[in-house]
Amino acid sequence: MDLREPRQERSRATRRRLLDAAVECLASRGWAGTTVAVVAERAGVSRGAAQHHFRTREDLVTAAVEYGAEERMAHLRSRPRDALDARAVVDLLADLYTSPLFKAALHLWVAASADPALRDRVAPLEARVGREAHRLTLELLGADESRPGVREAVQATLDLMRGLGLADLLTDDSPRRRPLLAQWAAMLDAALRG
Amino acid sequence: MDLREPRQERSRATRRRLLDAAVECLASRGWAGTTVAVVAERAGVSRGAAQHHFRTREDLVTAAVEYGAEERMAHLRSRPRDALDARAVVDLLADLYTSPLFKAALHLWVAASADPALRDRVAPLEARVGREAHRLTLELLGADESRPGVREAVQATLDLMRGLGLADLLTDDSPRRRPLLAQWAAMLDAALRG
Repeated sequence: MDLREPRQERSRATRRRLLDAAVECLASRGWAGTTVAVVAERAGVSRGAAQHHFRTREDLVTAAVEYGAEERMAHLRSRPRDALDARAVVDLLADLYTSPLFKAALHLWVAASADPALRDRVAPLEARVGREAHRLTLELLGADESRPGVREAVQATLDLMRGLGLADLLTDDSPRRRPLLAQWAAMLDAALRG
Repeated sequence: MDLREPRQERSRATRRRLLDAAVECLASRGWAGTTVAVVAERAGVSRGAAQHHFRTREDLVTAAVEYGAEERMAHLRSRPRDALDARAVVDLLADLYTSPLFKAALHLWVAASADPALRDRVAPLEARVGREAHRLTLELLGADESRPGVREAVQATLDLMRGLGLADLLTDDSPRRRPLLAQWAAMLDAALRG
């Protein structure tokens, strides 16, 4: 009887619970309130088991933001292949950038900006996630980046989403956001058509 | 002989030095690294004098971000009255949102999001600064907000700037930002013309 497989599955499930709890914890309590011990308790995992998976808070939190981003982007990528219109894409992105995952990433970026060792780990992660988000947005729009201005319009869309995520941090910004997204989708659509 | 006037002036100069030092400190060391004592030392002001002006770190930091934002916006407002083209306005705003002042504000917003008492102070400040930035951008563009889509295009411009400020936090984002701003100015210009 081979016991390795179930043990590996249990270990993967524990790791995933820790990653999900780290995103929630970071989004609601910020960097200072997110330690391996706090996340382990939230995940219902012993501190020893948590430390087996993630030696430091830095290991845990950077893994959690990367895992969360990959998972959300894989989910968006798995949608039916037809290109969506600009309005639908802009709405999907706005949901992503006002989610707890974005808030968690924001806490991590800001903590890294005042901590050189953390910055060295987070800057490549931010660049990787940014490139992936750009590629995904192009795919969802079915946009052709070789046309003049398309690359920059897609980048601007993602920077706008980061700004909207930030504007949603302290208060519910959704009433202001809705007409803005409609206007932005119209401007993006015009830019994509050239 | 009336000694009150010079004493008041000295007091104002001390207060201003503390506010400037608080913005610098917050931008470079973050919320956790910004205490009244650290800011007083950076400003060359005794801790007692600093505490006379600002009893708590919360008092000092919120006053510093508000003062910095008002000063920068008053400076932009004092420019010659002619409306600028979209490109010039977008460049001025990008400079503002990639400055140490924006980084300081970002640290304050993010700290407030995980601290309910601080959030109650910072949310109205964020709303006030946001309204002022909107009004200023309309003035600089000479834009007519009663035309359909103009209000939302100006809001999107400011949200984009917040996103660009965030993208400049961990690395120098200026090479990517330049062509993006040119494209955005063209899109904004088209939206303002209707």
